[in-house]
Amino acid sequence: MQGNPIPINNCHESEIQVRYAETDAMGFVYYGHYLTYFEVARINALADIGHPYHEMEGKGILIPVLSARVEYKKPARFGDKLIIRSMRHLLGKARVRFSYEVFCKKQLIATGQTTHAFMNRNQKPIRPPVDIAQHFPPLEKTT
Amino acid sequence: MQGNPIPINNCHESEIQVRYAETDAMGFVYYGHYLTYFEVARINALADIGHPYHEMEGKGILIPVLSARVEYKKPARFGDKLIIRSMRHLLGKARVRFSYEVFCKKQLIATGQTTHAFMNRNQKPIRPPVDIAQHFPPLEKTT
Amino acid sequence: MQGNPIPINNCHESEIQVRYAETDAMGFVYYGHYLTYFEVARINALADIGHPYHEMEGKGILIPVLSARVEYKKPARFGDKLIIRSMRHLLGKARVRFSYEVFCKKQLIATGQTTHAFMNRNQKPIRPPVDIAQHFPPLEKTT
Amino acid sequence: MQGNPIPINNCHESEIQVRYAETDAMGFVYYGHYLTYFEVARINALADIGHPYHEMEGKGILIPVLSARVEYKKPARFGDKLIIRSMRHLLGKARVRFSYEVFCKKQLIATGQTTHAFMNRNQKPIRPPVDIAQHFPPLEKTT
Repeated sequence: MQGNPIPINNCHESEIQVRYAETDAMGFVYYGHYLTYFEVARINALADIGHPYHEMEGKGILIPVLSARVEYKKPARFGDKLIIRSMRHLLGKARVRFSYEVFCKKQLIATGQTTHAFMNRNQKPIRPPVDIAQHFPPLEKTT
Repeated sequence: MQGNPIPINNCHESEIQVRYAETDAMGFVYYGHYLTYFEVARINALADIGHPYHEMEGKGILIPVLSARVEYKKPARFGDKLIIRSMRHLLGKARVRFSYEVFCKKQLIATGQTTHAFMNRNQKPIRPPVDIAQHFPPLEKTT
Repeated sequence: MQGNPIPINNCHESEIQVRYAETDAMGFVYYGHYLTYFEVARINALADIGHPYHEMEGKGILIPVLSARVEYKKPARFGDKLIIRSMRHLLGKARVRFSYEVFCKKQLIATGQTTHAFMNRNQKPIRPPVDIAQHFPPLEKTT
Repeated sequence: MQGNPIPINNCHESEIQVRYAETDAMGFVYYGHYLTYFEVARINALADIGHPYHEMEGKGILIPVLSARVEYKKPARFGDKLIIRSMRHLLGKARVRFSYEVFCKKQLIATGQTTHAFMNRNQKPIRPPVDIAQHFPPLEKTT
C-alpha cells in the first residue's frame, strides 16, 4: 500500500576530453579546472532535466555556489576522456548539492561536491521552483 | 615656430609573475594566457593615466576587443617574472591600439597587439572621451 | 594527362558549447578563450587525420605555436553552441598554418589563424613527418 | 624550564587584483579561480620562507594537491584588490595543509583549505625535507 517511494533518477553522466589549456607544467590537469569540469557536469544535468541554465538565468533564477570541494586521487592528462558522474540532492528547503565522481579509463580519479543557493536577479535568496526542485530528492531520504 | 609636437608618453610597464595555473604540459605558459597578460598590461596602463577600467565601466564606457595577435619568440616558465611593455595609439577617430612587448630576464620573448572600439552600455560604438583620447597619440604621427 | 591535382580535404569542423568559466563580466566569452577553442579545433582535426596530438607527443613530435591572431566580429554567450571550422596548410617546408572560422547560429562571429613549427623533444626544429605533412596542402596552391 | 615553545610564524599575506579574465557572466570572480588565488598565496608563502616552488621542483620535490575546498561568502568583482591570508601546518608526518582567508575591503569573502603530499620526480611520496618542514607547525599543537 504505502511501499517504497518511486525512486527519482538524480544521476547524470557527462564526458569531457582534457584540453591542453587545462594541463599544467606537472603534466597533469591543473587542480582548479576540476571545478570547471563540475560546472559542465552540472549544466548538462540541468539541461537533461529540462532546465537549461541559460534559460533559468533568463527567468531570473541564479544558483550561485556556496561551497566546493575536490579530492584528487589520480592525475588526468591531456587527451584523457573523463566521465563526470553527478548526483543531485535538496539540502533543507532552499539549497541543493551536487556530488561528483570523475572517472578516467574506468578508474575513479577524483570526487567532489558543490553546494548552491537559489537566488533572484537582485541577489536575494529564493525557494527553488517546484518544477526544478522535484528533480532533487532530499538528502536525508537517499543516503 | 612649428617645431616638434611635445611627445606624449604613451608607454607603460607592468610586471607579472607566471602562475602554475598558466603553464601547460609542455612546461611553458599556455599560448592563450598571453592575452590575459596583455589585459593586465592594458588595465594597468589605463589606471596609470587616471582612467581605471572599472570606473570607465561604471560610467558606461566599454572598450571591447576587435582583434588580437601574438608572436611567440621564446617560452616562459612557471615563476618567471615578465615585464609587459605596452604602447597605445589612436587608430582613426574611434578605435585604439595597444602594442605589447613581453620581456623575461631582459630578453624579448613575445610581442602582440590588440585593437579596441569604444562602446556604450547598449553596445553602440562611441567616440573615446577627450580626457581618455588625449593619452593616445594618433598612430600616423608616431611611427 | 596533367589535369588538376586531386584536392586534399583539409577542412574540419568541431562543435564547442560555451562554458560559464569562459564568459566574463561583460557577459560574453573572454577574448583569450578563443585561442583555447582554436586548440580544440586543431586537436580534433589532427585526430581526424589519424594523428592524435598526444600520440605525436608520445613519439617526440611537438608543434608549438609561433603566432596567433583573432578577429572578433560578434560576441558569444554562455551556452552558445559554436562551430569551429579549421583549414590547414603547409607554410614553406617546416611550418604549418591553421585558419579558423567560428560560427554561432550560422553567423560568422570570429576568425583567426595560428602558425606552428615542428619540434622534437629537445626543442630543435624538425621537418613534419610525411604521413602528417600529406594532410597539409601547400598554402600557395590552394589560395 | 620547559615553558611554551617559541611560536612559529606560519602566516603569510598576498595581494591579488582581480583580472577581467577571472570574472564570469554573473559579474563576479568565477568560483574555480579561487583555487588559482590559493596557489598564488601558497607559492608566495613558500618563497617567503626561503623555498621558492620552482627551486623545489628543480630539486625534484613536488607538492601535489590531495584535496581542496572553498567556502564562498561574498562575491569579488573585476578590479577588486584581494588579500589572501594563508596559514600552514604539518598533517601527520608527510602531508601539509594550507588554510586560506580571502579579504576584500577588509571583509572576509571566502575561506578555504588545501592538503598536499610531498612527492619526488617519480611520483613517490617522500617526507618533507627538514628545512621546509620546520616552517610548518603540527596541526595539533596550534589549534
